[in-house]
Amino acid sequence: MNACDPIFLPKGFKFSAVAAGIKTSGKPDLALISAGPRTTGAALFTANCVVAAPVEVGRAALASTKGRIRAVLVNSGNANCATGKAGIRDCRSVCAQAARLLEIRTSEVFPSSTGIIGVPLPTEKINARLQPLLANAGASVGHLRRFADAILTTDNRPKVASVPLRSGSAAITGIAKGSGMIHPQVATMLVYVLTDVVATPAELRSALRLACADSFNTISVDGDTSTNDTVLLLASGESRVSLSNVKKEFRAALSEVCRSLAEQIVRDGEGVQHVIRLHVEEAKSRTEALQVARTIATSMLVKTAWAGADPNWGRILAAAGRCGVALDPGKVSILIGDQTVCKGAVVCRFDEAQAHEHLSQAECCVRVRLGRGRASVEFLTTDLTAEYVRINADYST
Amino acid sequence: MNACDPIFLPKGFKFSAVAAGIKTSGKPDLALISAGPRTTGAALFTANCVVAAPVEVGRAALASTKGRIRAVLVNSGNANCATGKAGIRDCRSVCAQAARLLEIRTSEVFPSSTGIIGVPLPTEKINARLQPLLANAGASVGHLRRFADAILTTDNRPKVASVPLRSGSAAITGIAKGSGMIHPQVATMLVYVLTDVVATPAELRSALRLACADSFNTISVDGDTSTNDTVLLLASGESRVSLSNVKKEFRAALSEVCRSLAEQIVRDGEGVQHVIRLHVEEAKSRTEALQVARTIATSMLVKTAWAGADPNWGRILAAAGRCGVALDPGKVSILIGDQTVCKGAVVCRFDEAQAHEHLSQAECCVRVRLGRGRASVEFLTTDLTAEYVRINADYST
Repeated sequence: MNACDPIFLPKGFKFSAVAAGIKTSGKPDLALISAGPRTTGAALFTANCVVAAPVEVGRAALASTKGRIRAVLVNSGNANCATGKAGIRDCRSVCAQAARLLEIRTSEVFPSSTGIIGVPLPTEKINARLQPLLANAGASVGHLRRFADAILTTDNRPKVASVPLRSGSAAITGIAKGSGMIHPQVATMLVYVLTDVVATPAELRSALRLACADSFNTISVDGDTSTNDTVLLLASGESRVSLSNVKKEFRAALSEVCRSLAEQIVRDGEGVQHVIRLHVEEAKSRTEALQVARTIATSMLVKTAWAGADPNWGRILAAAGRCGVALDPGKVSILIGDQTVCKGAVVCRFDEAQAHEHLSQAECCVRVRLGRGRASVEFLTTDLTAEYVRINADYST
Repeated sequence: MNACDPIFLPKGFKFSAVAAGIKTSGKPDLALISAGPRTTGAALFTANCVVAAPVEVGRAALASTKGRIRAVLVNSGNANCATGKAGIRDCRSVCAQAARLLEIRTSEVFPSSTGIIGVPLPTEKINARLQPLLANAGASVGHLRRFADAILTTDNRPKVASVPLRSGSAAITGIAKGSGMIHPQVATMLVYVLTDVVATPAELRSALRLACADSFNTISVDGDTSTNDTVLLLASGESRVSLSNVKKEFRAALSEVCRSLAEQIVRDGEGVQHVIRLHVEEAKSRTEALQVARTIATSMLVKTAWAGADPNWGRILAAAGRCGVALDPGKVSILIGDQTVCKGAVVCRFDEAQAHEHLSQAECCVRVRLGRGRASVEFLTTDLTAEYVRINADYST
């Protein structure tokens, strides 16, 4: 979504952000969403075996409150991951402190962290800034934008998507961060989707699962699944519109918001010059299509070819060939833009300059047809540039 | 092996190379090994579903001759892959032409190709240079070196390894090429291992399978498995030493040759600045250890951290956590050089400067202990540098 696209504010949420000195840059790095007393929630978390403390604490909180959430407390600059029991204790302590100030239960505070792995959470810095954080809270678009800025790490741009429901009587608005370590397998990154419909946690969970399958679960920047990935959906109920009465519209709008955020994350991927819309078609199942798509999307040779806008379809074919699906190369076709460049795994006569031009665009389209069935997937991915290496070769030292 | 290490020439082989104009650089790109009439052979090929024409033709030739080979004809600069039926026809036609000149059967010529995918093999250029190729053949170390040079593509250095058997009465010498698309799953790259022992194809096959498991199958440069990977072992029999009489010594020497070639390939990996010897220990099985090692070795975030000599063990832990093995993070330790940097998935107090210095060396050692069992694997891999991106972003256009 463009900075000038309208944001529809779901009723019942306030936002704020402050700088707590967690990021060495001094930029805002502590952010809060507070929500009304009827707010319900559902979340999806990373599929990584190694999970950060806030993922453990947040999952337990949601279970103990049966999906009731009153506040989301996010810090950037530190992932609070691989910090052991002390990390859990630190996470609980900042939640407890925020809960005291907000006069709610500790388990109603949902925590998130993003940043470097393996460094203790600076709880004193965070606790010292909770009071001004609460004092700054407001429900305006400006407040929401400050929240969206404060949760970023290597991102270049904030990520917001918004869709009205029932001609504006309710809304869904999502806020996300994520630029590297993007290869979600169940959920991904930090994503907060807010709505003011009335909904049970179970209704939210099933809607969120569906929406994620086609958005965050079909993107990859660098093939690495984060330890902190979290997608949280909150419903304040303040519009008095019931999800069950607008189920179809709600699901479509939620998908639209999640897809938009997923696209914004890929576009802002570390060092990205080209976004590739990769269609894998004619697979036996969606799972199979995804397996082919993920292998192509994480191939360093394919991604570097894309960095050079190089119509080197041989690398795409070679990646598909090693992905574990028993492909018949004789049935595989590859298209770059509108041109078939390879059919039956054999080169076609095609206009190389035109293919190069297509791949030189900020967004381009590559289609791989497997000739095995009728399932397909649209996968969004990126090139691999020298800038990506530069960003990640000097991240922590 | 260093350029000055001695090469033990197995008896019964001649080598030659010429420039046929397949490479635009004008460097030698057509090479031949010819062998005596009692020569037996065994080969392993890529696990990729998409295989190049010479892999199909070579596999069929070995089957039809029951493991008898008289010549190996290699071109660099063109992979003859994804070239369809014409590619097979082209491959057979150059083999037939070479067989005529050598006065042997077409199926006794084993073909290999390496280079760009999807471009028709320039058979006229090759056929025009077969006569001088044969005329140049000789059994000296200089001839062997010319062969080793002519099969290279993006490689910076030729790769040769040699071990004497029975105090020099027989020998094993291997020649390899490979620098990118290195992530073997059954066999890899182009590797020719020559010996003068007397052996049946079955004896060669079982020895080769064992040797590859611990050499070419435990390395990765960029995670992409080639379509042309071939490891060929030829035994001329001319030493009159029988493999069955020196089985243990032969297997040990073959492993040494294969490991040396595998290491040379990794060291010469595209854009490589640091070679990492990755030990995955305390796994339930070797398969599980390999799964963890391959995931870490192909993580872009881990590889870019290594490029910066950054002791960012959080990325190693995060990669291990997503590999599909049900790790208990509480039991995982990571060592960089001699220092434990993470224990029970929690940071240890360690000397960061010393870890950085260790990772700054041309070769360094990272150890990941899973706390699940007693199996382990030693895996050789590389960093991911901006130079890798540069090389691969302008390969074909």
